Amino acid sequence: MAPAMTSRIDVSRIRRIAINTGGGDAPGLNAVIRAATLAALARGWEVLGIRHGYRGLLDGADPKDLIPLDADAVRGITHRGGSILGTANKGNPFEFPVPQPDGTVLATDRSDEVLRNFRAHGLDALVCIGGDGSLRIAHRFVEKGMPIVGVPKTIDNDLSGTVITFGFDTAVSTATEAIDRLHSTAESHERVMVVELMGRYAGWIALNAGIAGGADVILLPEIPYDLEKVADKVRRREAAGRHFSIVVVAEGAKPVGGGLTTQGPKEVGREVLLGGVGQLVATEIARRTGKETRSLVLGHLQRGGSPTSFDRLLGLRFGAAAIRALEAGEVNVMVALTPPTVKTVPIGVALERLKVVTTSCDTVLTARSLGICLGD
Amino acid sequence: MAPAMTSRIDVSRIRRIAINTGGGDAPGLNAVIRAATLAALARGWEVLGIRHGYRGLLDGADPKDLIPLDADAVRGITHRGGSILGTANKGNPFEFPVPQPDGTVLATDRSDEVLRNFRAHGLDALVCIGGDGSLRIAHRFVEKGMPIVGVPKTIDNDLSGTVITFGFDTAVSTATEAIDRLHSTAESHERVMVVELMGRYAGWIALNAGIAGGADVILLPEIPYDLEKVADKVRRREAAGRHFSIVVVAEGAKPVGGGLTTQGPKEVGREVLLGGVGQLVATEIARRTGKETRSLVLGHLQRGGSPTSFDRLLGLRFGAAAIRALEAGEVNVMVALTPPTVKTVPIGVALERLKVVTTSCDTVLTARSLGICLGD
Amino acid sequence: MAPAMTSRIDVSRIRRIAINTGGGDAPGLNAVIRAATLAALARGWEVLGIRHGYRGLLDGADPKDLIPLDADAVRGITHRGGSILGTANKGNPFEFPVPQPDGTVLATDRSDEVLRNFRAHGLDALVCIGGDGSLRIAHRFVEKGMPIVGVPKTIDNDLSGTVITFGFDTAVSTATEAIDRLHSTAESHERVMVVELMGRYAGWIALNAGIAGGADVILLPEIPYDLEKVADKVRRREAAGRHFSIVVVAEGAKPVGGGLTTQGPKEVGREVLLGGVGQLVATEIARRTGKETRSLVLGHLQRGGSPTSFDRLLGLRFGAAAIRALEAGEVNVMVALTPPTVKTVPIGVALERLKVVTTSCDTVLTARSLGICLGD
Amino acid sequence: MAPAMTSRIDVSRIRRIAINTGGGDAPGLNAVIRAATLAALARGWEVLGIRHGYRGLLDGADPKDLIPLDADAVRGITHRGGSILGTANKGNPFEFPVPQPDGTVLATDRSDEVLRNFRAHGLDALVCIGGDGSLRIAHRFVEKGMPIVGVPKTIDNDLSGTVITFGFDTAVSTATEAIDRLHSTAESHERVMVVELMGRYAGWIALNAGIAGGADVILLPEIPYDLEKVADKVRRREAAGRHFSIVVVAEGAKPVGGGLTTQGPKEVGREVLLGGVGQLVATEIARRTGKETRSLVLGHLQRGGSPTSFDRLLGLRFGAAAIRALEAGEVNVMVALTPPTVKTVPIGVALERLKVVTTSCDTVLTARSLGICLGD
Repeated sequence: MAPAMTSRIDVSRIRRIAINTGGGDAPGLNAVIRAATLAALARGWEVLGIRHGYRGLLDGADPKDLIPLDADAVRGITHRGGSILGTANKGNPFEFPVPQPDGTVLATDRSDEVLRNFRAHGLDALVCIGGDGSLRIAHRFVEKGMPIVGVPKTIDNDLSGTVITFGFDTAVSTATEAIDRLHSTAESHERVMVVELMGRYAGWIALNAGIAGGADVILLPEIPYDLEKVADKVRRREAAGRHFSIVVVAEGAKPVGGGLTTQGPKEVGREVLLGGVGQLVATEIARRTGKETRSLVLGHLQRGGSPTSFDRLLGLRFGAAAIRALEAGEVNVMVALTPPTVKTVPIGVALERLKVVTTSCDTVLTARSLGICLGD
Repeated sequence: MAPAMTSRIDVSRIRRIAINTGGGDAPGLNAVIRAATLAALARGWEVLGIRHGYRGLLDGADPKDLIPLDADAVRGITHRGGSILGTANKGNPFEFPVPQPDGTVLATDRSDEVLRNFRAHGLDALVCIGGDGSLRIAHRFVEKGMPIVGVPKTIDNDLSGTVITFGFDTAVSTATEAIDRLHSTAESHERVMVVELMGRYAGWIALNAGIAGGADVILLPEIPYDLEKVADKVRRREAAGRHFSIVVVAEGAKPVGGGLTTQGPKEVGREVLLGGVGQLVATEIARRTGKETRSLVLGHLQRGGSPTSFDRLLGLRFGAAAIRALEAGEVNVMVALTPPTVKTVPIGVALERLKVVTTSCDTVLTARSLGICLGD
Repeated sequence: MAPAMTSRIDVSRIRRIAINTGGGDAPGLNAVIRAATLAALARGWEVLGIRHGYRGLLDGADPKDLIPLDADAVRGITHRGGSILGTANKGNPFEFPVPQPDGTVLATDRSDEVLRNFRAHGLDALVCIGGDGSLRIAHRFVEKGMPIVGVPKTIDNDLSGTVITFGFDTAVSTATEAIDRLHSTAESHERVMVVELMGRYAGWIALNAGIAGGADVILLPEIPYDLEKVADKVRRREAAGRHFSIVVVAEGAKPVGGGLTTQGPKEVGREVLLGGVGQLVATEIARRTGKETRSLVLGHLQRGGSPTSFDRLLGLRFGAAAIRALEAGEVNVMVALTPPTVKTVPIGVALERLKVVTTSCDTVLTARSLGICLGD
Repeated sequence: MAPAMTSRIDVSRIRRIAINTGGGDAPGLNAVIRAATLAALARGWEVLGIRHGYRGLLDGADPKDLIPLDADAVRGITHRGGSILGTANKGNPFEFPVPQPDGTVLATDRSDEVLRNFRAHGLDALVCIGGDGSLRIAHRFVEKGMPIVGVPKTIDNDLSGTVITFGFDTAVSTATEAIDRLHSTAESHERVMVVELMGRYAGWIALNAGIAGGADVILLPEIPYDLEKVADKVRRREAAGRHFSIVVVAEGAKPVGGGLTTQGPKEVGREVLLGGVGQLVATEIARRTGKETRSLVLGHLQRGGSPTSFDRLLGLRFGAAAIRALEAGEVNVMVALTPPTVKTVPIGVALERLKVVTTSCDTVLTARSLGICLGD
């Protein structure tokens, strides 16, 4: 998708705006909502919160899915995880899933409903907080004439156009703390502990938390791993009197050659079903080294909880910047952190390509300097 | 096992004592080691740390598994998880596993070796930090004439004779924090989150963390659960506009009737293999309520990490009390918290029966008052 | 005050109860309020929250100071610090401060107003959460015929009749974490760090946090300190190559002889004004040892923040137990932790004497075993 | 000082390098030391740690102030606060304080000693971790021919040339947590809480933590404050039923006009002595609004404790980058974060001017959008 040009709207006519959040949870969502709401109210605008993505704008929506946001509604929410607007979206309005009598599900375009109700509610602009998927939908609504400012959200830090997004620091912090906890047990029990972290396509959480937590091995989606290299690292530590190892695996990590393992495919299938790549790697390490090995999937713990001060601040800055962008007449843009400041970039910039770990980035070089095995 | 009478030793002959730790990790182990070491040194005694249970006292032991403990060796360890003496025990000396040429494993009594080496190293007494299993072994060594003071250790808080043991508060704290994190995500995603906590026979961690974390359902080994009651709780919350639920499951929780589920036994077997009782419960809730459900096993995170201030203090008090007991000539006793003080009780008292949750205890009554479903 | 006998009320007539909180903040207050409210609602009783002590029951009270508590009102508050009922009491109703035209303040007995309004609002009983002062007032209201169940609250853990109260564990935890932070800076800067903790009459916070945090010196109200002993401890550490020391001082710590220092009284007065006993001790250590010394007053940080899982659970157990006591017809009692259970004791028991640190308690013995200087 | 050009050294001759740290503590120092050490060892270089700045290189230095760093020496230190090399510098070698017989202190240039001993120990380059002061000294040593790579360190985030430095995120995090704690107490006690944070010349800690923690007023060195504006903010909140306020004050905040207050200078002097600008502001707010007000100085708590995952990672990246710079032959440079990568800039760039808060930066705009009073 080519980055669309930034558009402009007539600022003088803004009376009422809406805010929604889409996709998975990310600590800091409430900070964005609070700052955007207060900044809009300070300009004399009214604010509506659309609950659960675009759910409140579909025909026949529950009135409770469209709530007025005033100062009271956003009080004391900065430090709270989750989203007061919810993220339990039931579907992309452009391809809304409609169950058919025969049991199948049909994708239906309900975007016109959304647009019509948007106008019926007297809305002049939308602040859309979302990740890759949500921003793509926003982009299509822009093309249909809805003025939108996007706020990038991704726990995985894989969106282009912004150096970082809120939620990522909290996820890394939670994961690092978990690795810290595993260290003491791994050492006194003389075990290999494998912990599987989030990151389907980009390994930033695993890479950053793995380095910060002192992992011995870190496996990423971007660097195909060789289990023999991993086993060898464990063996070399053993030989050096270090009778434990910590292995961090991103959920999207893949072995060299694309196959999942040297075992037969059926076995593989069962293993994957059992517990994902973390358990698979643990089983293989145990088999190859004879070491007692345990695995753990950190899962949703990485999405929840109170945001770090970093994510609170970034969320608040993003929310305020989104309103400043609207005030300046900018739409079809996304706020973005380009240190030391928050600027705007065309929404399309974020959608061009995934921001993945490159093997030449200084963080990877740091990992190698520390003697961490990256599986290659 | 009948509680053995407390024995006495001739204190005037104590010159050198040993400390060991057995069984699984528990935050606070290092606090016990530090306090016992410093208290012994202050009395002019020498201290040896036996690494990995009794490993350092077996014939042919690695000299590194028997280390002198001075003030430097125990400096700055109170706040560290794990155990500087390790807990990677390779076997009960009374039934030591010896692999045979034909591939089988034979249980061999190597307790005499331990006793002989204990004396050969000039040791006059042992401070043994351990749970049910380790204290049973200690009890047998006492019967063979080894002067021992026990320090109770159990993450599950299921040892009798003491109101509480170190490690439990940290485990509950870690689990509560995890439940806090799941809350925000459960609510904004409108999901049921099932979290499986430690507790094979006693449900204290699940009960305490579940109440403190605001769980809606708590399933314990002591109260057989009825999945229909659980599903009903989720449905009633849904009807009341609470579109999410938090379900806490102790790993030893069992359904009414002893069967694991209403599904056939083969299915059950597979499910249990897949992820334990937590995943089983999650699957059933999803099936019965139609709600999106996720499960998570907290696992070893509960054993690791820096101990809470409560566990640090309790560990230090236990360690110092163990040395006071030796100084008073007491052996075959275990230190125990009987608030407000730490006293000694015969080791056998801790071994009589497991301290499980009773349905009439005020904590269970509290859970019911709060409207928490206990599965019955 | 002699402990009054436990009284009984006719349970069958309870239709509506009130809850109030008095005195300083303690983490866990909201847990008590939540549990007491839900437990009362479950019995079909109505619940009113009286804001700011008895403020809402004085003649001419702001209607907002008397709020109905239902399930929604107490949702999601367990983990929140502070009190949804506030603790900004404006005065003891028995000696209410009334400013006079001439500028003086007259103590007036407004207790009859409180009693009259209590009945006018159809209240049948009061759950009063408070410390020494609040429970004394409650005791007097009991004597005037108001049925009351007390819930003990003291950050300092100095109330008799209960092994521990909520809030204390959080305060110790916060203080221990602060001491942890000071350790690294003290060591790398080779300084003496003095931290002043709460505890005017009882030194439990300082004693427990000091031991858990690895302090080198702990000064308590119960053990008069000799500054030369303190300086000597710092000097001995210096000589042993330990170029830093951590000194924990309870705010009520006093020097031997009752005088504040060897300096003249005027100087003393100024110093005390400047920063309390912590700064005084720091100044003297610097003067006597020549070491660079810094002091810090932790202050209100110890009262705030999210309660630990321990305090959440204890608060919830206390709240539920208070309602069970009412249901059993008990009044003029206080709920109390006598492990492993929560029971009731006559309110007067808590008022007999302050629970202070005794020099023979095992925690003090532990401190001495660890080589901690207690100033004597 | 004009930024010196980057110099180059002959890499092939590097056999042994040194690392030192200067100035105040900053969480993350140990991460830098670990990464630099491991990265150097991986290149076959030897590493010496110079304790306490340049102390170990002065004539007659204690041999213990110069320690060989191998993998064991830097094991398990990433998450530890403080610096294993210490920061208790006794003086700038170019102006070393030498006490004279008459009681005065004479500044003596001992830089030649340092240079001579540097060479005598066979050192080929120095990694110098320090702030403004230490980097200035490093710059002068560069001019004398010592090959140096600098690593920027400032808790206050006021160094130019790098977007951020390690330690700052931990300080903001600690301060935000403290503000969180004060919130609950301020609200339930209906008080104004004033908390004084670090920041003598730059208000970044106060600004970031104040916003993240939800402060109502933030006073910075860069924006002279008008106490009447502050009092007015408190009064307006009171009128709106918000009976508490949180005021964050950077230690370097100054009133409009440069005078400290409207009170007479003697009074001012005493107040400042009493507790710094925080207490002064608190006293004035109480006087002008009649509200109960408390103040707190967070002090050294901001420098201590375990670094956040952000600071651990940044420290590790900086340490590794410093060695890559040396390997590339660069000296007289400083590593710097220019997201997404760590690069090098001439040391002089960091010394040109202090990086202070500008009133047009988006973080200040965010504060204003949120309705936070900045005292102007």
